[in-house]
Amino acid sequence: MLKVAIVGASGYTGAELLRILVGHPEVEICCVTSRQHEGLPIHQVFPSLSGFCDLLCEPLDVAAIAARADVVFTALPHKSAMEVVPGFLDAGCKVIDLSADYRLKDQDVYQQWYQPHTSPELFAEAVYGLPELYAEQIRSARLIANPGCYPTSVILALAPLLEEQLIDPKTLIVDSKSGVSGAGRGVKLGSLFCESNEGFKAYGIASHRHTPEIEQELASLAATDIRLSFTPHLLPVNRGILSTCYADLLETKSSDELLDLYRQRYADEQFVRVMPGEQLPNIAYIRGTNFCDIGLVSDPHTGRVIVISAIDNLVKGAAGQAVQNMNIMCGFKDAIGLGIVPMFP
Amino acid sequence: MLKVAIVGASGYTGAELLRILVGHPEVEICCVTSRQHEGLPIHQVFPSLSGFCDLLCEPLDVAAIAARADVVFTALPHKSAMEVVPGFLDAGCKVIDLSADYRLKDQDVYQQWYQPHTSPELFAEAVYGLPELYAEQIRSARLIANPGCYPTSVILALAPLLEEQLIDPKTLIVDSKSGVSGAGRGVKLGSLFCESNEGFKAYGIASHRHTPEIEQELASLAATDIRLSFTPHLLPVNRGILSTCYADLLETKSSDELLDLYRQRYADEQFVRVMPGEQLPNIAYIRGTNFCDIGLVSDPHTGRVIVISAIDNLVKGAAGQAVQNMNIMCGFKDAIGLGIVPMFP
Amino acid sequence: MLKVAIVGASGYTGAELLRILVGHPEVEICCVTSRQHEGLPIHQVFPSLSGFCDLLCEPLDVAAIAARADVVFTALPHKSAMEVVPGFLDAGCKVIDLSADYRLKDQDVYQQWYQPHTSPELFAEAVYGLPELYAEQIRSARLIANPGCYPTSVILALAPLLEEQLIDPKTLIVDSKSGVSGAGRGVKLGSLFCESNEGFKAYGIASHRHTPEIEQELASLAATDIRLSFTPHLLPVNRGILSTCYADLLETKSSDELLDLYRQRYADEQFVRVMPGEQLPNIAYIRGTNFCDIGLVSDPHTGRVIVISAIDNLVKGAAGQAVQNMNIMCGFKDAIGLGIVPMFP
Amino acid sequence: MLKVAIVGASGYTGAELLRILVGHPEVEICCVTSRQHEGLPIHQVFPSLSGFCDLLCEPLDVAAIAARADVVFTALPHKSAMEVVPGFLDAGCKVIDLSADYRLKDQDVYQQWYQPHTSPELFAEAVYGLPELYAEQIRSARLIANPGCYPTSVILALAPLLEEQLIDPKTLIVDSKSGVSGAGRGVKLGSLFCESNEGFKAYGIASHRHTPEIEQELASLAATDIRLSFTPHLLPVNRGILSTCYADLLETKSSDELLDLYRQRYADEQFVRVMPGEQLPNIAYIRGTNFCDIGLVSDPHTGRVIVISAIDNLVKGAAGQAVQNMNIMCGFKDAIGLGIVPMFP
Repeated sequence: MLKVAIVGASGYTGAELLRILVGHPEVEICCVTSRQHEGLPIHQVFPSLSGFCDLLCEPLDVAAIAARADVVFTALPHKSAMEVVPGFLDAGCKVIDLSADYRLKDQDVYQQWYQPHTSPELFAEAVYGLPELYAEQIRSARLIANPGCYPTSVILALAPLLEEQLIDPKTLIVDSKSGVSGAGRGVKLGSLFCESNEGFKAYGIASHRHTPEIEQELASLAATDIRLSFTPHLLPVNRGILSTCYADLLETKSSDELLDLYRQRYADEQFVRVMPGEQLPNIAYIRGTNFCDIGLVSDPHTGRVIVISAIDNLVKGAAGQAVQNMNIMCGFKDAIGLGIVPMFP
Repeated sequence: MLKVAIVGASGYTGAELLRILVGHPEVEICCVTSRQHEGLPIHQVFPSLSGFCDLLCEPLDVAAIAARADVVFTALPHKSAMEVVPGFLDAGCKVIDLSADYRLKDQDVYQQWYQPHTSPELFAEAVYGLPELYAEQIRSARLIANPGCYPTSVILALAPLLEEQLIDPKTLIVDSKSGVSGAGRGVKLGSLFCESNEGFKAYGIASHRHTPEIEQELASLAATDIRLSFTPHLLPVNRGILSTCYADLLETKSSDELLDLYRQRYADEQFVRVMPGEQLPNIAYIRGTNFCDIGLVSDPHTGRVIVISAIDNLVKGAAGQAVQNMNIMCGFKDAIGLGIVPMFP
Repeated sequence: MLKVAIVGASGYTGAELLRILVGHPEVEICCVTSRQHEGLPIHQVFPSLSGFCDLLCEPLDVAAIAARADVVFTALPHKSAMEVVPGFLDAGCKVIDLSADYRLKDQDVYQQWYQPHTSPELFAEAVYGLPELYAEQIRSARLIANPGCYPTSVILALAPLLEEQLIDPKTLIVDSKSGVSGAGRGVKLGSLFCESNEGFKAYGIASHRHTPEIEQELASLAATDIRLSFTPHLLPVNRGILSTCYADLLETKSSDELLDLYRQRYADEQFVRVMPGEQLPNIAYIRGTNFCDIGLVSDPHTGRVIVISAIDNLVKGAAGQAVQNMNIMCGFKDAIGLGIVPMFP
Repeated sequence: MLKVAIVGASGYTGAELLRILVGHPEVEICCVTSRQHEGLPIHQVFPSLSGFCDLLCEPLDVAAIAARADVVFTALPHKSAMEVVPGFLDAGCKVIDLSADYRLKDQDVYQQWYQPHTSPELFAEAVYGLPELYAEQIRSARLIANPGCYPTSVILALAPLLEEQLIDPKTLIVDSKSGVSGAGRGVKLGSLFCESNEGFKAYGIASHRHTPEIEQELASLAATDIRLSFTPHLLPVNRGILSTCYADLLETKSSDELLDLYRQRYADEQFVRVMPGEQLPNIAYIRGTNFCDIGLVSDPHTGRVIVISAIDNLVKGAAGQAVQNMNIMCGFKDAIGLGIVPMFP
């Protein structure tokens, strides 16, 4: 059994890692940490887990954890993650970091959007953990930078078009909508029920920190510089991201032709479901699962293609993708522990 | 007292007309019609109205209603509206039609998107009832084509930029999100609670019937042909439309410069609120009211402007705008009966 | 114009007082206080109020406020209220206190459920501000203890039965459900969107602080001691309380007979709507208004009556009732400023 | 592999049977029926199931289905179920009926609450499929009457107290709240999003059809006649039932003593989780799972006990319990295929 530790277990991402890993047949969770709930059984922090996990929340002691764990999931805020990741690596653990700390390849860009970085020497080694793009590198990685939730939804939506150079990269516009769990479990005014319920708004227009991450990966796919309009919105649901992506087509292609391209591109990817015909993704169809559903329309009226993707921000956008990465790193089957059937309604 | 009739009172738009008009100091509601609930007091159809309106639902008898009413609000589906509107006009009533039947100026376009039209001779006379653009014509109109909900949100968002020719009309993309009441009170699978709640999806991509209406009005403002990408989405809230509009700027303008332009353009429009500084609209701030809140960001990174507008689809997007039109047609003050303070949360 | 101050304006109750009072024809709001937002215009704290109120948030300076205000609404937590209420009274203001500090008549009971009280000498003077029971005393009061939200819903539901001694007081069970705004705007884990949305739970069983307040008032109506089972639940909606009340009937009465009794009892009370026939209250029918809707069923199978009441916890359960009290104290018509028509949906 | 058919697969209960059974290691789904969607792949009816089930919806042909299936789940409305259940039994299938048609033991009671019954001769044979009470009989049953959702939540909440004769059966009051999926997937006004969202109401007071079913089972446990006050309410969530049960204690017992009793009673029942100490159930903690969470408070102030149970109406209240019954009937382990970890949030 693989021994895994979850560092930062009392947030929603931590809870989701636990939900998935308690049922994983090859894994034993050996440690959960939470500063805030130290000493409390994790099933009192999350009563939903009652009967599934009796571990007590521990303080974050790198050496003590590294002595017991083979793989460490760091579900900490950016900056907090970089304070412990190098220690876990030095102690011989594999690390899957769910923060933003190792996702950007360019230190200047990181420091412009976040703050000074204390271990930029790891940038070259860290593998961007999007298995549909980087499975080979993930297989042999020590450090995975688990992708952001918005970037996952956008990159999977646009990769086939950019790889085939079918769209004009200068015209890319992404309008994304995320459920409230994307803001985490921290107590702040904007996350209150009454501030979000029956509301809807954009935020962080032209300034959201996921923008450089998306641009980096799309630029790599397009082999050209990318400047993106990215507008995130706050959706009054618990979970789910839907991204609506617009681009000018460089040559005329029908919806069916483009859907065929997507089906080919993702034929071997069991977590990408290309919707049939005119069906469009809905976050209700992938809730709780590691799927990314994709649909699209080619519009001859404007010459644009509109691609829509839906993921669960806590699963394919965080914990599920992290477990998918772990499976690949450890030689398990990709989907093991992730065969959750979507619950509808 | 002005005598008004509400034809088609048992839908959400009808209920909203009642909510607003029972408190209007210059109006007496003389008739409500509903085929489905004929003979039932309207406060049993909508118990919320208990104590405010005791009228019984009548059948739709044009002559009988015209004999009593000065102004008729037709809150019927398209096609049903055109069957009765000419009759009301012939009988001397003023008509405010909330359907799509008299909004398009080009009969071919109407028939391409809807079905054959039986009174196209009224197209020239019908005034598109967006007071922020057409107050003068509304003042003397007999027939108002009350704008669609999406078009209201989009036209108000983009008018100042198009009037000043600050954006490239070929780059217009509108990503809209509407609450479920936009689908009406008809019983259909897609409107069920469990089909929408905790869900989010796009629908009618590149094929929504509000597209030609938006294009007609934007083209008139821009004095050029417009082809728009318009993507509506279904938002799991009762009310509210938020439209996120993207366009390439033709010259560099800062957010503050553009906000100033909006403030000037709408200085005399009491139902348009331009948000201060970096604040962005939220459908939670205008719920139940006739306001259109607008905010924007000019993004030097991409050279685009992103404009966001929020309205209540049942008020500024339907019943409230209809009453605003009535006020103008009848020489009342614009805002009379519409001074509703937004309820938050 | 009556000059009023709102002390503690940045909570949901404060916002609701503002929503109601900005449209009140006899009132001028002269001051709003908020420690947290001192110096900020209140319409930036609540953008919904943009265009309706430009006041800046002030610190809580009793003397400075009392010099300007005729009536002071204290929308503070219990304990904070008692620190300022005596000062406002001494300075000649009328005070409507929305906290629990002056609702209980028995100092021991207060101190058992809350903490030591520093001005118990005001208990005798404070009038429990439920106009349907105490209009006469309210008229001449200096200090109103504005009732709790749950107590308002329960007392109005049960008063007619207890006054007529139709039910056995020992069998009273009240099962109440409240929207999340009842927990206030303070940032705490339990009020987060993701902790409440799609959830439902009871809390404070047999230990909620509104229990002694309800028992005090029901005992007064029944002229006998009352011990109540009171179970509040947290409902995933913004607003609304629905209380389901159970009691054994002392004599056989049909639903119609009991409804007649309720109609008589509340014939002169314009904010109580007794539902016709078999219709039952729904919080959706009174949202945003000062109404208390009541329905009931007499069940011959068990010999019990089930009474259901619905109020908006922020209006009839707080700010609306406070304004109703102000109207009575100041000789205005009861309903002035409170004629809000319910918005549905 | 056990061959199972799902008759009536296009409702929410059918979808839930599919969600659970596609992952069941001992089962092969051989047939799904839907009159409405005949010929359509079930994953187009429920896109959530895309990739999990490719079966086409068949018409309901008893002989054709019986020739292929070992076990038939009938997820039909009452009355429709009794039209096909005898045929499946005659053809040698085991039947798990999710309707109300075989739950009541007394034909008169059935006919009083529903309509004439055409196969009352099966009443004696049908086993009420609540495994926590009737596991032994389920093991050898041909026909399971799968319990109603409300009854499941109430019987599990009260069984230990009634078995031990700790409460006065004459004082039983049950206040239940159910998510909207309990009303099924049929299109009707009351199930529309805008009619339920942000609303809350009671319905069917003293007249809900689950009342006789609950009374039958509680009477059997108590060995005395039971007359219950049962009040269902409609909760604006997709899934979940929370039942708050009140009864007078016949002898003084503390919360801890009663919780111990519950823990003993349900020690071997893996789907009943007795909450620790003062923790109370929340439908958010059991969503999507077959758990029934139970908590309670003994209140010395009134001498009553308040017991609260939470289930997912579509799982333990329908499809999950049906699969649990199948597992027992077929000699599988109780929990096989039902080991779903609750998703929070």
